[in-house]
Amino acid sequence: MSARFYAPEARASGELVTLPPDEAEHLIKVLRLRVGDPVRIFNGRGAEFDGLVELSARLDVRIRLGDRRESAQEPGVAITLAQAVLKGDKMDAVVRDAVMMGVAVVQPIVSARTEVTLTALERGHRRERWERIAVSSAKQCGRAVIPSILMPCVFDTLVTGLMELRVPNPGLMFVEPSAGRETDSLSDLAAQPPREVTVIVGPEGGWTPEEVARGAATGRLISFRGRTLRADAMPTVALAALFARWGEL
Amino acid sequence: MSARFYAPEARASGELVTLPPDEAEHLIKVLRLRVGDPVRIFNGRGAEFDGLVELSARLDVRIRLGDRRESAQEPGVAITLAQAVLKGDKMDAVVRDAVMMGVAVVQPIVSARTEVTLTALERGHRRERWERIAVSSAKQCGRAVIPSILMPCVFDTLVTGLMELRVPNPGLMFVEPSAGRETDSLSDLAAQPPREVTVIVGPEGGWTPEEVARGAATGRLISFRGRTLRADAMPTVALAALFARWGEL
Repeated sequence: MSARFYAPEARASGELVTLPPDEAEHLIKVLRLRVGDPVRIFNGRGAEFDGLVELSARLDVRIRLGDRRESAQEPGVAITLAQAVLKGDKMDAVVRDAVMMGVAVVQPIVSARTEVTLTALERGHRRERWERIAVSSAKQCGRAVIPSILMPCVFDTLVTGLMELRVPNPGLMFVEPSAGRETDSLSDLAAQPPREVTVIVGPEGGWTPEEVARGAATGRLISFRGRTLRADAMPTVALAALFARWGEL
Repeated sequence: MSARFYAPEARASGELVTLPPDEAEHLIKVLRLRVGDPVRIFNGRGAEFDGLVELSARLDVRIRLGDRRESAQEPGVAITLAQAVLKGDKMDAVVRDAVMMGVAVVQPIVSARTEVTLTALERGHRRERWERIAVSSAKQCGRAVIPSILMPCVFDTLVTGLMELRVPNPGLMFVEPSAGRETDSLSDLAAQPPREVTVIVGPEGGWTPEEVARGAATGRLISFRGRTLRADAMPTVALAALFARWGEL
């Protein structure tokens, strides 16, 4: 298959679309494609097209869209991954793998034991970095949809937002079996997936008892019985397990 | 909970056991424990004990075993992960995460598109390295069982061994949906787990058509519909999905 590029303005066959600067650079400098070369274009909202390079100059690459192509199927359940920001660059890998697994939205959160502040995240332009990672992961794994990376927020804001939804169990919060409360296991979930759900995963240091109580008030607490997982492995394992439970793998 | 150490010779309460050199070094140099400090000891075969440091000198640490403790529950299905060796140090992460997920055995394999030879693996003492990684992952995630890391073998040897088992579907081979054959999806598997099974995962370049044909002859071909996963994410996702399918998460 031809190399895939992200062009958010692509809408219909026949159009001439300009690639964003990052994508243009990738096409020219890394893949060294030229005028007339075939490519695949996706718009990040589910549409995918054949395309031909029509103009290629530094940071100015235009593609003539050809036939619309069938794009990879998206999961039937729209999962928002609400992930407490992990240390160092571990959150980069979480975003990359969550996009690969098929989440609809990533909501970075700051909880009591998260070792970074909202201000530091903003100053470090971390959200913009995660957006670039989401594009690159969608390119690599063939998704035609690029999940939104929401503005980071504190755990309380997330939970308040979920409570306002007024639907049953809008959140599934993953907690340690030792969290000291009744937790459900994966097989307690209905085999039929909800239409949308927020999957809440904590930081290296886990949740405080107050956070677990708030989580229990807005949805269900889930734990993997008998297993202790590293914080950075947790989101991928949780997503794989949920998609498997719901027949979406 | 006290720090956990691996002492393969630990058998019964009351014994005085010597820690292996790596573990002794960890206890003294990293955690700086001293005579009289409490520890947890596991023997890698499922038994776990309280313990007290009774002698602590360079590379000579002895622990008096106290009460036997309940250890983390092992999965009801014994999974052998037969994983084609990945490039660089990616296989290290695969071994670490497979131990965390709860495999019983890791069988490194060399397939047609694996970019390393059995000779190079042996010369690089890679198996010994993976054994150390398995110990360290079991320590970190609370398992009292250390999975065996088998001698690397070629794909053909693996498949021949599976055929000699003469049980139905001893192998589940994960393939791309584009493998050009009938594949099952996860929900085609019985919800009741087998007693043991070998999960076969390929290298970055995928399987050859001949390998897929041999895999189909010894078991079932499984694919995740609509998803393209990175080779190094595949084993963890496959294990999470299978354990979830079988009610073991």
